Amino acid sequence: MKYKKIDVNADVGESFGNYKYGLDEELMKYITSANVACGFHAGDPRVMRKAVMLAKEHGVAVGAHPGFPDLMGFGRRMMDVSPEEMKDYLVYQVGALKAFVEAAGMKLHHVGPHGSFSAHAIRNEEVAEALMDGILEIDPELILVGTRPGLATYEMARKKGLRVASQVGVDIDYRPDRTAIIQREKKEMDPQEAVRRVRRIIEEGKITASDGSDMEFRVDALLVHGDTPNAIEVCKAVRAELKRMGVEIVPFGQFV
Amino acid sequence: MKYKKIDVNADVGESFGNYKYGLDEELMKYITSANVACGFHAGDPRVMRKAVMLAKEHGVAVGAHPGFPDLMGFGRRMMDVSPEEMKDYLVYQVGALKAFVEAAGMKLHHVGPHGSFSAHAIRNEEVAEALMDGILEIDPELILVGTRPGLATYEMARKKGLRVASQVGVDIDYRPDRTAIIQREKKEMDPQEAVRRVRRIIEEGKITASDGSDMEFRVDALLVHGDTPNAIEVCKAVRAELKRMGVEIVPFGQFV
Amino acid sequence: MKYKKIDVNADVGESFGNYKYGLDEELMKYITSANVACGFHAGDPRVMRKAVMLAKEHGVAVGAHPGFPDLMGFGRRMMDVSPEEMKDYLVYQVGALKAFVEAAGMKLHHVGPHGSFSAHAIRNEEVAEALMDGILEIDPELILVGTRPGLATYEMARKKGLRVASQVGVDIDYRPDRTAIIQREKKEMDPQEAVRRVRRIIEEGKITASDGSDMEFRVDALLVHGDTPNAIEVCKAVRAELKRMGVEIVPFGQFV
Amino acid sequence: MKYKKIDVNADVGESFGNYKYGLDEELMKYITSANVACGFHAGDPRVMRKAVMLAKEHGVAVGAHPGFPDLMGFGRRMMDVSPEEMKDYLVYQVGALKAFVEAAGMKLHHVGPHGSFSAHAIRNEEVAEALMDGILEIDPELILVGTRPGLATYEMARKKGLRVASQVGVDIDYRPDRTAIIQREKKEMDPQEAVRRVRRIIEEGKITASDGSDMEFRVDALLVHGDTPNAIEVCKAVRAELKRMGVEIVPFGQFV
Repeated sequence: MKYKKIDVNADVGESFGNYKYGLDEELMKYITSANVACGFHAGDPRVMRKAVMLAKEHGVAVGAHPGFPDLMGFGRRMMDVSPEEMKDYLVYQVGALKAFVEAAGMKLHHVGPHGSFSAHAIRNEEVAEALMDGILEIDPELILVGTRPGLATYEMARKKGLRVASQVGVDIDYRPDRTAIIQREKKEMDPQEAVRRVRRIIEEGKITASDGSDMEFRVDALLVHGDTPNAIEVCKAVRAELKRMGVEIVPFGQFV
Repeated sequence: MKYKKIDVNADVGESFGNYKYGLDEELMKYITSANVACGFHAGDPRVMRKAVMLAKEHGVAVGAHPGFPDLMGFGRRMMDVSPEEMKDYLVYQVGALKAFVEAAGMKLHHVGPHGSFSAHAIRNEEVAEALMDGILEIDPELILVGTRPGLATYEMARKKGLRVASQVGVDIDYRPDRTAIIQREKKEMDPQEAVRRVRRIIEEGKITASDGSDMEFRVDALLVHGDTPNAIEVCKAVRAELKRMGVEIVPFGQFV
Repeated sequence: MKYKKIDVNADVGESFGNYKYGLDEELMKYITSANVACGFHAGDPRVMRKAVMLAKEHGVAVGAHPGFPDLMGFGRRMMDVSPEEMKDYLVYQVGALKAFVEAAGMKLHHVGPHGSFSAHAIRNEEVAEALMDGILEIDPELILVGTRPGLATYEMARKKGLRVASQVGVDIDYRPDRTAIIQREKKEMDPQEAVRRVRRIIEEGKITASDGSDMEFRVDALLVHGDTPNAIEVCKAVRAELKRMGVEIVPFGQFV
Repeated sequence: MKYKKIDVNADVGESFGNYKYGLDEELMKYITSANVACGFHAGDPRVMRKAVMLAKEHGVAVGAHPGFPDLMGFGRRMMDVSPEEMKDYLVYQVGALKAFVEAAGMKLHHVGPHGSFSAHAIRNEEVAEALMDGILEIDPELILVGTRPGLATYEMARKKGLRVASQVGVDIDYRPDRTAIIQREKKEMDPQEAVRRVRRIIEEGKITASDGSDMEFRVDALLVHGDTPNAIEVCKAVRAELKRMGVEIVPFGQFV
């Protein structure tokens, strides 16, 4: 067994105004850390407040989930945003969420850049550096999540002395270069397939890439996407398996 | 002479993307405190960063200037936003600005609700209470500005133990009930008229209302609107007169 | 029996980006005319296209459903928009939808101003006039819907020679002054209560106001709100009752 | 002399709410066709109405200038929008403008895709096809402008039977592959350099590319950017030179 502790993480707070998205109320019962959307790709101030209060109620560690200013595309379309803009978009969004978190008497736990916002940093070094600098500006204790060993952002974070948690989605696929395959709309996930993936991570420390090859790297957080239609079922199955294996499920801030 | 110290305050950071608005670079030389737009009625993350850095350079105390989510109407159109929404819109915007301020090594000085956002609180007690609670949630040391004695928000702030600075715009008019007359677009202001108003405030503690009657109340900050076409000229004239009278021009945080 | 023909109308196309709203696919089977959101309070270009194509498939007459530029509030918050702005916001939105309708080989059938956009016109004569002028500018054959006898907009439309269809929602309540009681979020509606209301309209020509008093006026279109959780059930029940009574269900453009 | 007739074209209507942009009132006196922003990258319904009325007053042919939904980036940042989205974003924006044009008693003259919206089509064939189909859906008589011989969009437009006008900006540079070099913010342009470029186009039919090589192709419209700080001066100089050479300045719809 490679791990004694692991985090179960999910994106939440992605509703907007009258539009409901995801299953925050249910999901919160099964996760240990949450990435809360910050009003750019999804979320609004009311939604953020509710997500933070819900996280508090369930003892879930709260992180910011900043994204591109593209609500119509849910932040999943690449935008050619400059490094300076990236940094300022990050500081703005993380700052806004931090205010709700502190108003609830909690401490902001991490920053997990969203979808294409994260992908933009992975493929552009200057953008990645801007993003890290933005996080460090706000609080050098914040943990970067949403990246993994082998990605430029993971390596840069370590070099810059930023705390970083390696994350793998149990309901999406990864290319051999360790980038996630971003879909505009999620499909159902077989919970047993998710369980198999998790078992392999825990027991062997390995993930199967989209080309069938093996990737071997440390995983701190298992991500379940809130817009996977059967996210709750997947979450429950993953948790049950982790418990069965004797792995402790805690926020990654306790061990990275 | 009624005052030994007074603040000269202005709204800044109201540009958006490629759209320039106001004269921040010039204005900053003549003011002691600034209200920075927070991305709802005006401003964007790049603009906010620049405004904060400029304020730092000139030793200007920085406050947040939260507004309605109505960029097309520049936040000057009344919107029937609920108390809960008001509170959350305020926390979101102030939190976002606070992050830029702290990243610059400064401390957020005040909150000055913008145009109709402020007017909504003045005419609705529940909204006012929500707005105050939002400020207190973020930091009980923050000073509320943009109100004045006689307005519901001023009195409520005092009752709630919130620090509050009384503000009067030298380039706009006030009704006898002390509400400002909000214009969708500003016109030129005769600098000598501004000087006359300031002299009356300093010497007699009085302001002439729109109906010609006298209002008598404490003034902590003299506001100059950045979108008054000749704002710089007005600012210079006001400062020169204050110096002539021996009034010290300092951020209101030093005396309220 | 007061009516031989009546229209069953619904708001559709209120999804936005990845956010799904309402049950367009199902609803379209049961209605004869549809009000398609135009991207301000809800809807986006993809959603509009899909709604128009779906309407075509089901032989549903298509109208525009312009609203306030307030996606976060779903257009349900009053905004103090000027008459000139109202007119231009209407022309913009209706023009955009008209392009999709004509691209589908259809003709735009009507304009049904949304929620508070409509309410703003009802309570302000200049705004109402601006709104009518906007419709007339686009096409004097367009029918105004969403108003009813007794409302200022209904009477003004008739005076200006605009075609107008009287509309009553079977799932919302009306004040004695004939204004609708707008809710930020809709609740379930007892289908039998909807049927009772419809029977009373058809048989007696009467509607019960929120204070229990009777209102007597012509009704051309029965509205079912797409965000009423059980809208489909309500729609089916209403249609079944209309058929039972021998009332022909056709777009109001065929008889007003 | 290669040309007897040419069009002088400019982007207008790029203001937004209280934000002023460009010099529409002045520019309109010197141009024969105008590309009016449609509310996505710039412009709003009030601004569009004003631009159309101003064009009418000066006898300027009006076209639509659809862009990316990115007001914060002024549509100048590439966005990975799908072909279906491109088509619908185009139909929406062009439809909205067409309504204002027809309300003014004019006929929509052309469609000139904006900045990166156009560049996206140039570098992606499916996107280009979607864009052309969108124009054809609205009105097969509409002329595509903003492209030039050698670009994929120009060749595809001809193949699809779409009317097309070749356009060259006198105040920006072109790569040898005939793509424009898009800048986030424009700089001053030496009017005499603009005049030299225009003379070369008219006399030799040639343009110098950014690498110093010659490009030889037909030009129907000379573009002056409204956000070039001295656009009016450039426009005047270009017009004076065209008149001196005996070239007639008319909307390109009269000769393509």
